[in-house]
Amino acid sequence: MTRHLLLAAAAAIALPVTASAQSMPTVPDAEVSALRDAAMQDEYAWDITEGLTTEIGPRLAGTEAEARARDWAVAKLTEMGFSNVGIETYDMPVWVRGEEHGAITTPFPQPLTLTALGNSAATPPEGIEAEVVYFASFAEMMAAPADAIEGKIVFVSHDMQPTQDGSGYGNYGAARFVGPSFASQKGAVAMVIKSIGTDNHRTPHTGGTNFAQGVEPIPAAALSVPDAEQLERVFERGQPVRMTLTLTPRQTGMHESGNVVAEVPGSDPEAGIVLIACHLDSWDLGTGAIDDGAGCGIIAAAAKHIMDAGQPRRTIRILFAGAEEVGVFGGDAYYEAHKGEKIVLVSESDFGADRVWKVTSVLPESAEPVGARVAAALAPIGVVGAQGSAHGGADVGMFARNGVAVIDLHQDGTRYFDLHHTPDDTLDKVDPEQLRQNVAAWTAMLAVVANAPEEIGPVTHAE
Amino acid sequence: MTRHLLLAAAAAIALPVTASAQSMPTVPDAEVSALRDAAMQDEYAWDITEGLTTEIGPRLAGTEAEARARDWAVAKLTEMGFSNVGIETYDMPVWVRGEEHGAITTPFPQPLTLTALGNSAATPPEGIEAEVVYFASFAEMMAAPADAIEGKIVFVSHDMQPTQDGSGYGNYGAARFVGPSFASQKGAVAMVIKSIGTDNHRTPHTGGTNFAQGVEPIPAAALSVPDAEQLERVFERGQPVRMTLTLTPRQTGMHESGNVVAEVPGSDPEAGIVLIACHLDSWDLGTGAIDDGAGCGIIAAAAKHIMDAGQPRRTIRILFAGAEEVGVFGGDAYYEAHKGEKIVLVSESDFGADRVWKVTSVLPESAEPVGARVAAALAPIGVVGAQGSAHGGADVGMFARNGVAVIDLHQDGTRYFDLHHTPDDTLDKVDPEQLRQNVAAWTAMLAVVANAPEEIGPVTHAE
Repeated sequence: MTRHLLLAAAAAIALPVTASAQSMPTVPDAEVSALRDAAMQDEYAWDITEGLTTEIGPRLAGTEAEARARDWAVAKLTEMGFSNVGIETYDMPVWVRGEEHGAITTPFPQPLTLTALGNSAATPPEGIEAEVVYFASFAEMMAAPADAIEGKIVFVSHDMQPTQDGSGYGNYGAARFVGPSFASQKGAVAMVIKSIGTDNHRTPHTGGTNFAQGVEPIPAAALSVPDAEQLERVFERGQPVRMTLTLTPRQTGMHESGNVVAEVPGSDPEAGIVLIACHLDSWDLGTGAIDDGAGCGIIAAAAKHIMDAGQPRRTIRILFAGAEEVGVFGGDAYYEAHKGEKIVLVSESDFGADRVWKVTSVLPESAEPVGARVAAALAPIGVVGAQGSAHGGADVGMFARNGVAVIDLHQDGTRYFDLHHTPDDTLDKVDPEQLRQNVAAWTAMLAVVANAPEEIGPVTHAE
Repeated sequence: MTRHLLLAAAAAIALPVTASAQSMPTVPDAEVSALRDAAMQDEYAWDITEGLTTEIGPRLAGTEAEARARDWAVAKLTEMGFSNVGIETYDMPVWVRGEEHGAITTPFPQPLTLTALGNSAATPPEGIEAEVVYFASFAEMMAAPADAIEGKIVFVSHDMQPTQDGSGYGNYGAARFVGPSFASQKGAVAMVIKSIGTDNHRTPHTGGTNFAQGVEPIPAAALSVPDAEQLERVFERGQPVRMTLTLTPRQTGMHESGNVVAEVPGSDPEAGIVLIACHLDSWDLGTGAIDDGAGCGIIAAAAKHIMDAGQPRRTIRILFAGAEEVGVFGGDAYYEAHKGEKIVLVSESDFGADRVWKVTSVLPESAEPVGARVAAALAPIGVVGAQGSAHGGADVGMFARNGVAVIDLHQDGTRYFDLHHTPDDTLDKVDPEQLRQNVAAWTAMLAVVANAPEEIGPVTHAE
């Protein structure tokens, strides 16, 4: 009950902001409000998240587990009554994890908990042993001369803090995204980073790293946050530090992956398609509950509520994208195959399962009232209608970057980077009450967007 | 500041209880209060906990890491100015961890995070594969006929909840302490338990298991709590479940371990010795910050504050016991070697680093005023002086069971079993403010006990 009071208070504060931005207040549509409130009792999103994480578990892109997840999703979406359920395949390069061990050997011998980053090179099976050079930040590593790094294992730390909007991932994440490539260019024999995470558990955060063309891949791993802090304390003692590292991942060549699609057909083919997305693949360490089983649960549940309320004007197309984590292969393949269709708006749920706290949009001028009606419909469940851009998630990003309208329902990311890409991304981390608020927000948004009488054309002033 | 108000409120409520129990209120001694309050600024306990966990890390009993910890402790206690610092060795059987993997193979193939229990037998190197039989509690397993278990892997779950006093460990822990022995007797090929823990992280809780004489040891492991919940959900589907299990630990024979001792010599040899203990060894998965690096930090810091305030009447002897986790080999060896000495009171810190919330004692009638003065000195820092027995920790338990007086300073265990015996038992889990409150409580207790003019004789009405 406290939560509801808080949400109501947030809504009361939020509304005037939206209203002033839109110059006059918009009253929520009664039918939309009724659908939204009914969706607050949703069970579909939990059913999908629980089922996918339990019956499939981890589903690394391009593996047979991801293939089982596609079959599972086709069966589930068919059972729910969606139309045109199917799989669209593509091939992609597949990297798989091997053994992973590390230990400080000097001056204080002890094991370290770490995990290989996606695309990491392998060490010899017996591992390597080398001096470690410590940088408190990625910027400090970049500023260091090559002779401080050559022949050594680079250790880069950071001081990432939790934030509601997840800002910080782009900045602190650079050490993971491109750090090993730069370390390799400076002659490092391997790189370990403090996990790009905000927790304090011995559960390291994996994630992809990318080696620039022509750069020799090196072994690259993330230490759990407590292990990275331990290594920092060891460096504080001022003595030379050496460590062993054994990583035996491998690139296995090209394998099949695929997207799963389904539809709620609209009554007006000329009105265009609303494309809503999540991703079906997960990293291999956890069961992908918050990243992104819950996202698939949320969008499919919302589409189900709209379908059951009667045929919408616009077709709602569900995309459970494959292979997002390892390079957005599914989203990119989907864009190439479908960019010629009349997709008028995109939106994605891929930031956990905690509540929606903000909505932003990029819409053509003619459709700005649609955005105002969405914001009005979301305010009663504690969502701020805010200025600011919208980008879609990774899997619909190509559409957004090419002029398709976007609505972003921003999820609370305060604890997202406690769990992101770790073994700890499991079902117990999903709060059923917040999951339902997501479904209610998506149901309200879809009710407005799919039935809007306005034309939703391309955004000609796209960034 | 809020904490201080809460503590003051707790003290205000607590005092009358103690007072009524003792029939008249006791005013805290001013010198004791001054020592206690000065100890609220303690840095020694953190210094020891940080140093031991960083410079040694995990220190499994009977290994060279535990030997390094002994040398570290001798150097530290000597540097702090204690007298008669030394090591007393003994031999003990040593079990060491090997590879550990598990996976559901049917009906939903996926890996499981688990860790071997101490004394677990090994599987063949290639592992075993068998049907799993599920029991929601240890009691249900015990009630099951052998033919439901024979040839299978037994999975026993539980619903342990966090409690302030740690009650529940004895009850729920039975599945770990003796479960595998009974499962072996019923013909199980292996046993997996839900970790005896209250967290929801992929960090399984190890701990010793004991096979009764004549019972063939079987492979035995703890699943992390999220993995156990996952396996329960798999069983809810009603299909036969099979899993693989690979554990390659081994018994390595007899090895040397040892206790580290140090003293603050008292002025009156006739007044007897106050023996305060912690344990120096840790399980191998974490760095043993809360179990029991902090305990060693707390007792040594408190003894240091007493020593620096002037020579006490009674000798305070510090025991950093070895090999507690794996069978109290250090405590038992210490008792055998020193049971003839005039040890008049024992106390141990071995329940984490969170604040002391209750004090209980078992004292001879002649020394009951000592207990009342201790309770009075602790009330202002939020400690309830309560009725109820005192047992000492494991390492001084033999003294307590043989008539030596005991004072227990009970630590708040609400989050202890989130961390206990897991990889997550690391320094970051220690709250420096609560650690200092422990030191203050121990300093006050020692100030009263070591200087009490009363005779502290044996407890003739011992349980």
